[in-house]
Parts: sequence; structure tokens; C-alpha cells
Amino acid sequence: MKPAKSYILNIKPYVPGKPIGEVKRELKLTSVIKLASNENPYPVSPKVRAAIVKAASQVTRYPDGGCFILRSALAKFLKVQENQLIFGNGSDEVIVLAVKAFVGEGDEVIIAKPSFLIYEIASRIAGAKIHDVPLKNFCYDLPAMKAKLSKRTKLVFIGNPDNPSGKFINTKEAEDFMKAVSPDTLVFFDEAYFEYVNAKDYPDTLKLMKKYPNLMVTRTFSKMYGLAGLRIGYGIASPEIIDILNRLREPFNVNSLAQAAAVAALADQPYYRRLAKDIEAQRRYLYSSLKDLGFKYEDSFTNFILIQVANASQVAAGLLKKGVIIRDMTGWGLPDYIRVSIGTASENKKFIKSLEEL
Amino acid sequence: MKPAKSYILNIKPYVPGKPIGEVKRELKLTSVIKLASNENPYPVSPKVRAAIVKAASQVTRYPDGGCFILRSALAKFLKVQENQLIFGNGSDEVIVLAVKAFVGEGDEVIIAKPSFLIYEIASRIAGAKIHDVPLKNFCYDLPAMKAKLSKRTKLVFIGNPDNPSGKFINTKEAEDFMKAVSPDTLVFFDEAYFEYVNAKDYPDTLKLMKKYPNLMVTRTFSKMYGLAGLRIGYGIASPEIIDILNRLREPFNVNSLAQAAAVAALADQPYYRRLAKDIEAQRRYLYSSLKDLGFKYEDSFTNFILIQVANASQVAAGLLKKGVIIRDMTGWGLPDYIRVSIGTASENKKFIKSLEEL
Repeated sequence: MKPAKSYILNIKPYVPGKPIGEVKRELKLTSVIKLASNENPYPVSPKVRAAIVKAASQVTRYPDGGCFILRSALAKFLKVQENQLIFGNGSDEVIVLAVKAFVGEGDEVIIAKPSFLIYEIASRIAGAKIHDVPLKNFCYDLPAMKAKLSKRTKLVFIGNPDNPSGKFINTKEAEDFMKAVSPDTLVFFDEAYFEYVNAKDYPDTLKLMKKYPNLMVTRTFSKMYGLAGLRIGYGIASPEIIDILNRLREPFNVNSLAQAAAVAALADQPYYRRLAKDIEAQRRYLYSSLKDLGFKYEDSFTNFILIQVANASQVAAGLLKKGVIIRDMTGWGLPDYIRVSIGTASENKKFIKSLEEL
Repeated sequence: MKPAKSYILNIKPYVPGKPIGEVKRELKLTSVIKLASNENPYPVSPKVRAAIVKAASQVTRYPDGGCFILRSALAKFLKVQENQLIFGNGSDEVIVLAVKAFVGEGDEVIIAKPSFLIYEIASRIAGAKIHDVPLKNFCYDLPAMKAKLSKRTKLVFIGNPDNPSGKFINTKEAEDFMKAVSPDTLVFFDEAYFEYVNAKDYPDTLKLMKKYPNLMVTRTFSKMYGLAGLRIGYGIASPEIIDILNRLREPFNVNSLAQAAAVAALADQPYYRRLAKDIEAQRRYLYSSLKDLGFKYEDSFTNFILIQVANASQVAAGLLKKGVIIRDMTGWGLPDYIRVSIGTASENKKFIKSLEEL
């Protein structure tokens, strides 16, 4: 059996961070903390947990393929129309749908490097020609990205804030970029970490979308809302773009417990506001501890920090032995950086202590 | 924004059965039963429910992208190697992955008509040329399907048992068909209703796969195991085919509660054996009641029955007003058939009573 396209055999699957259970098994450790996948380190909101338990009796039935209740709640919350929303099995599914919809074989896609790996994997699967544009001081090099725009450019990915840099392009930069892009090119703002950003010049892309209908945004319940395990994210775009994506979507792509949990999470804003403040405080703690230890790091607007080390693979292996899982950035082309997700106060202390011991 | 392929705009999205909540809202009914989506009508197994509740505290973490625990349990249960399995967000995702992997634009796909609509939708999305082969007395017309085989045939779908007919191709037919097919053509056995079949001549496709590595099988936890709402199905094939599909899979496509629930379901075989027997008994009850009322129906090896009526749309609308949701087969090219999922004893009684009243 040969695949339809020979390039499929060249696609390297995404390598996820190791689950805690697997690390415990492998290293025979009893206490392991995971600061590798930018997860929310706090317990599930009690209201969300109650919604999951309540919905557990309904799993024999197919989910609502239209996400009726969640759609209505989210449209109100975001002040958009219901037909401007599409839900995905994680926002990565919405990324894949957008590529499938708008990028054909040989079409061009512009991606910053390094950035979230799924942009590249999804584009490769579509057979796209990828223009990688290196970051400049860990920020998007927008002039260089503009220089790559052509008639064949079908999609530009902007992780905002981006992963692994933790930085964002601001309102003026976003607007200037949209002006330079053809209305036939989709500009895809991945705002997975949106809820963690506390900055006045962060762009209001939903407002910008009214002026530029070729702008699309994704957000997720996996990060601040802590529903990574349940897989639910969403896209916001013009009704025309959403209609096209819906034709490619599997009818029951979002499970019913994810829908119930997301509705409960949206309604529990006070819990998440406290949590985002805690993460901010913990980020300051990590900054000052890293400074004390003499480490250079990148200022971040998210729940993770890129930290410069002598040899990322060695540091990652050393921390792993101490039961601390972080992300070695070697595979992303940054052999002297690790990416550390911000954990709870005690997790962060353990990380700093382990780093000091190394 | 124009889609990459103009044919995307011609794809009609799958129209799912209406959720009970929506029907209640629309018709202002308090009691509604749904016999439309071939779901398991019984309560969730208490062990499965407990596994979901236990795993609910873990949803902040990404799921295990490799489905380590479930993979190990299922490989043992099926007596296959772990690398012969791929898990999907429902088995429909595995169908989509197989099409994406092996069918390019202009390649040919053979599908019985009518059959499960996702085969056609997934093939259209891939830009395939589809050969529809009409059923003959509601059975697969295998000689006609063989006659459509060509060098460009990349995939043949065999729903076994098929939806909506409820019938299967037997061991001899399956083997004869495999002999006629080129080793470059994937023969895809969709065995979503496998667990309901009680027939000696039902083919052992896992055995047949050893002889014909171009045979692939999907099964699901959505039907007998009653996890439709959680979205989990799986494919079984050669390690080579699984490796190709894995390259196209999103890394966290199966949520963690689905994994936990599926492990618990597999371990709770006595519960499901009882349940499958109940469905068989209820099928006999429906057969005899339909005979008494003078209805013609198709013998089924699944948890649904195709029933001939004068006008399916009228009957479906009439039943809906009485709070009974069934499937009108008009959209499948069968304007004088309805498809009714086998419910609990009281649900089936209500259906028969409502049908009689009409």
C-alpha cells in the first residue's frame, strides 16, 4: 500500500511531551511534575468538574454536532454572531481544517520559525510550499514575512502570542500587516494563549476582522480554561469562511463532555480570573529566581518561559531524572533553550531548586 | 476567500439526527425518545461511569497521544500487535484518515449505495471519482463492485454489517472479493456494528488481514459500548498502513475521558454481553410487532431495522409529533423506508404504539 502522495512518508509526526505516568514508569519515580505542555497546573474548577460528572450519564448519545448550547453562550460572551463560530477537537483541528479548505498542493504558506509545529505539519500534509521566516530577537519579522507574500500565498500563520517565544505582535503591527496582505490570503491568528495576555497594545482581532474579512482567529479551552484533556477549541471568522470549514468538518467532532465543560468554564469567569493572576505572580517569581541564578530568559505574555541554558538536551535530561519534565527546544532549532510552563507555587520552587542543583 | 478546490462548495455536510433536547425545544414536548442514531439505549455501565468520574480531575492535562493503556488492553483483547492499532475521534475520523492517506484527486473509490454517508463525503473532500454500486435486495452486489475495479481504484468501502441495510457479506464472499482486488487497493471493512452480529458465517477479517495486507478494519466504542458522546473508534491494519495514517493524525485526537471510558468498557464484557442479548430479544419483539401490523422490514444483524412505509417523510413527521425520533431514509434514496434503532423495551413499545396510531 502506497500513500496517495509520496511526501506523506516525509512528514515527521508531532512528538508530544511525555505523559507523567509514562515518565514515572520509565524512571521509577514516585513524584513527577510536568511543566512541558503549557497546561493549566491548578485543579479543575469545581463547577466544571460538576458539569462533567452530570454529563457522564449522557455519553451513550451522540454529541450535538452543532454545539447548540455552547455556541449560543460563546457568541454572547464574544459578542459575535453564532454563524461566525466553528468548534474543533482542540483548536489544532481548526488549524487543520483551515489549511485543508484554503491551501492546495503547491500553494504557499508563510510561517515564522520557530513556531507551533502543527502549522508546518498541517501545511506539509496539504502539499504546500512553506516559507519559513526566522524570528528576529524572538519576535515576528513582519517586514521579512511581507516580502514573502505572493499571488500563491494562501495562508499566513501568526501565533499571537506565539509558542515558544511567548511574545505577540501589537495592534499597529497587526493592522499594518493586514493592509499589506491580499484579500485572497487568509491571515490566521492563533490566540491559544490570549487569556493570559495582559497588555494594552495587544490587538483586538475580532474588531480588525470587521475591516479585514480574510482574518481568522482561533482560541482554545485547553490552556487557561484547563480542558486540554477534553479537546475543545474554536475558530472565529466571517460566516462565509465558517461555512466552508463546516463542509470539511466531521459531523460529531466535539465530544459532549467537552461541550458541557466548556459551557461551565465560560460561566465561571471569577475562577479563571484568579487563576490568571496567580500565573502572573508565579511568572514574576520565576523571573526573579532565574535572575538570581544568572539565567537569561525571554519575557513572556503567556504561561510559559523560554530560558537560555548551555545545553538544552543535557539540562532536560538532568531535570527529568529529578522528576521535572520541561521541554527541550533542540528539536525546534534552539539547542540552547528550554521551555518551561508556569506551574503552581510548589512546582515552580521544585523546578528552580532542581535547576540550581544541576 | 475562495476554497482551494471549487468542489468543496458542492459538498453537502452530513445532517445528523436531531438531539433530543432540540426536538423538545422545537415541539414543546416533555417526553421524547430517540431511535434515530443507532445508539445504545441502556444506561452507561456503572464501571464506565466511575472511570469517567475518576478521570474528570485530570482534564487539565493533555491526553496521552499514544493511548498507551488503551492500546495495550485492546491489543491483548483482539490478539493483534500494538502497532496494528490506530485510535480516532470516533471511527469516522479513521475513515477520513484512510481516504486522506490513500486517495488522491481523480483516484477512484467504490461505495455501495445507499451506505453510510461519511464514505461518500470523505471521498468527495479528497476529490475522488466515486463509483456508486446500488445494493441488490439490500445486499452488496459484489459482482457489480468487482466490475468497477480498475488500476485507479484506491479504496473500496464495505460496511459490514452495513448501515442502513443491517446486512453483512459473509466469509466466502469476503474472501472471494479480496482475491479479485489488486494488492494496491485498500479494502476497508467498517465493522461499527460488529459486536451485535450473531452469525457463524460472519467473516473473521483479522484473520483474513494476515493473508491480505491491503485489508483494513474499523470498529467503534460508539455503538454497543455506548460511548458515542465521547468519540472513540479504532482501526486495525498492517503496521505499515497504521504508520502512514499516524503521520496524518492530529497528535491529541482522542480525549482522555474517552480513553479511560474505553479501557473500563473493554474490561466490563459481562455487562455488554447481557446488553447485546437484550437488543437481540428486542429485535425479535419489533419483528413480530411489525408483522402483526403488516409492515415489511429487512432482517438486520445490528441494532437498527429498515422498515418499509408508504411515505417515509410523512411517517417520520407523524412520529416526531408523538415524541418519537426515527430516521427518514428519503435523503438516502429510499423514500419508502424509515430506519429505526432498537431501543429499550418501553421505547420500542412506544414506537410500535405510535406507528399503530398513525
